[in-house]
Amino acid sequence: MSHRNREFEIISKQATEGVKELLGVPSDFHVFFTSSANEIWERSIQNLVGEKSLHFVNGAFSKRYYEIAAQLGKKPVKFEVEAGHGFSMDIPVEDGVELVALTHNETSTGVSVPMDFINQFREHYPNALIAVDSVSSLPYPQYDFSKIDTLFFSIQKGFGLPAGLGVWIVNDRCIAKSEELLARGLSIGSYHNLPTLLQHGKKNQTPETPNVLGIYLLGRVTEDFLRRGIKIIRSETEYKAAILYQALSVHPYASPFVAEPAHRSKTVIVAQSGDHTKLISDELAAAGLHAGEGYGDRKKTQLRFANFPAHSREQFEKLVDELEKIR
Amino acid sequence: MSHRNREFEIISKQATEGVKELLGVPSDFHVFFTSSANEIWERSIQNLVGEKSLHFVNGAFSKRYYEIAAQLGKKPVKFEVEAGHGFSMDIPVEDGVELVALTHNETSTGVSVPMDFINQFREHYPNALIAVDSVSSLPYPQYDFSKIDTLFFSIQKGFGLPAGLGVWIVNDRCIAKSEELLARGLSIGSYHNLPTLLQHGKKNQTPETPNVLGIYLLGRVTEDFLRRGIKIIRSETEYKAAILYQALSVHPYASPFVAEPAHRSKTVIVAQSGDHTKLISDELAAAGLHAGEGYGDRKKTQLRFANFPAHSREQFEKLVDELEKIR
Repeated sequence: MSHRNREFEIISKQATEGVKELLGVPSDFHVFFTSSANEIWERSIQNLVGEKSLHFVNGAFSKRYYEIAAQLGKKPVKFEVEAGHGFSMDIPVEDGVELVALTHNETSTGVSVPMDFINQFREHYPNALIAVDSVSSLPYPQYDFSKIDTLFFSIQKGFGLPAGLGVWIVNDRCIAKSEELLARGLSIGSYHNLPTLLQHGKKNQTPETPNVLGIYLLGRVTEDFLRRGIKIIRSETEYKAAILYQALSVHPYASPFVAEPAHRSKTVIVAQSGDHTKLISDELAAAGLHAGEGYGDRKKTQLRFANFPAHSREQFEKLVDELEKIR
Repeated sequence: MSHRNREFEIISKQATEGVKELLGVPSDFHVFFTSSANEIWERSIQNLVGEKSLHFVNGAFSKRYYEIAAQLGKKPVKFEVEAGHGFSMDIPVEDGVELVALTHNETSTGVSVPMDFINQFREHYPNALIAVDSVSSLPYPQYDFSKIDTLFFSIQKGFGLPAGLGVWIVNDRCIAKSEELLARGLSIGSYHNLPTLLQHGKKNQTPETPNVLGIYLLGRVTEDFLRRGIKIIRSETEYKAAILYQALSVHPYASPFVAEPAHRSKTVIVAQSGDHTKLISDELAAAGLHAGEGYGDRKKTQLRFANFPAHSREQFEKLVDELEKIR
């Protein structure tokens, strides 16, 4: 299919409107397509930061966002805590911050930041844009869009689709910032800068030939999620997370990696399994359950469990039963 | 499927090796994946141009490549001819050119540049990199890789696949140039700069979560093309182009838009059909054949026919028969 015809515009509109309805995105926000969330790290820095961004780093992915800002010639600052830990509510005071970069759910460690943490930045940094990477948590979290300016995710995690599409939600403050940077003579990129995305997005088009199949499938999946009901998806996510954390808490060979319950992710649940990692992984595999490896140098000592809408309650109940047998 | 496992590496290797074998790419060239050829316009300027690129412009797509260079803060120069025309062999002499940007097949007009034209730049610009956009012509053209430094295409044209993947072929001179720009303190982008693509590519990996399905399908299609034989695909392409140009040349209501036979594309054949455009389009549609619209302001006065490996000889013979009936 050509991406310059009416048929594509309908597909594109279904996907953007589906995302808006599902996540409760207000009308002054726009939904754009990129090729990955990784691309959005880059585009958001290019389009929203002249010099200084402030990054909350607690794992490999939030760190990569910070590094990209440095690679693009900006002067980012970071506030870093150890893997497996969250942030205290005492947030640092920094001058001249143009963008606060928050990773809602750090996929490498299973740490999630509470909504209260995200929602305090508007008051502390009224002149900055607030960016939230929600790659491995959406559609679960419910955001207060009056407290953030841009939100993004990719479709291969919670939306259960083949990889190759990033979804970038921005408000008019973001558009204005990109125009201001451009007027100051800074490069904000070319075909995927915000003014160009907006110009095409208004017509339900894209600047380049996009991943049409991915956009089509996103429209179908949001329709399916809306039919199931986002409230039900959220409560099921909480139920599944609760029974798994409970099973890990009492297990002789494993425990939740994130000690502080308030910082535990509902969608990426990480078990500290040490020397028993292979045993647990093998036993679960024998029961038809695939546990993800730990991230990076914790590959052999941790297991990661995705808790997405595609995972049923029954699967999680079976997972808990099988875990209980391993002792 | 995760993109950080052995299974993905095998898929990625099959696709890159398939591309190399099919197109006869020498071993000192690398094959990388991006999200579109549009992205490669941007990445190639970022990574291969400090200040000055020279662009041969004869339509909307070659012009866009030039514009992207300007958007990225470079000082591109262009050598432009009218739509429907090719370039003479008298090439302009410009000082300080770091990249010569050539569009092998201008999709908007159906003009292709002869291989002799491409192959002369190495001698005239020994210090420049030679870049060839081959979006709507590959796998048809056979390149002399000693005369070019980078070549790129996307998979939704000649490879007949769903859109959402660009393939970027570069040699070691390109890698060296990107490293030189980086050492000089210029930004060459982040996750998709050449050193990062190379670092991951060596392991058959990608920096970001890519369009895994597109990469898998590219591997399958190159396998299929190799089974059919690239020589047969090329000779069939020439046969189909020849019978269509012949039919247009003698048609009472249409003629080839590109007057000079040496500049006529074999893969995107544009008919000047004037007031008869709708009549021809409707009659072909009634026979089950879909003619593409003209590009931009030639939408109502031209028709464009794609001639890709997925189009059979029989389809083109039928197209010619149907065209002959319209008079």
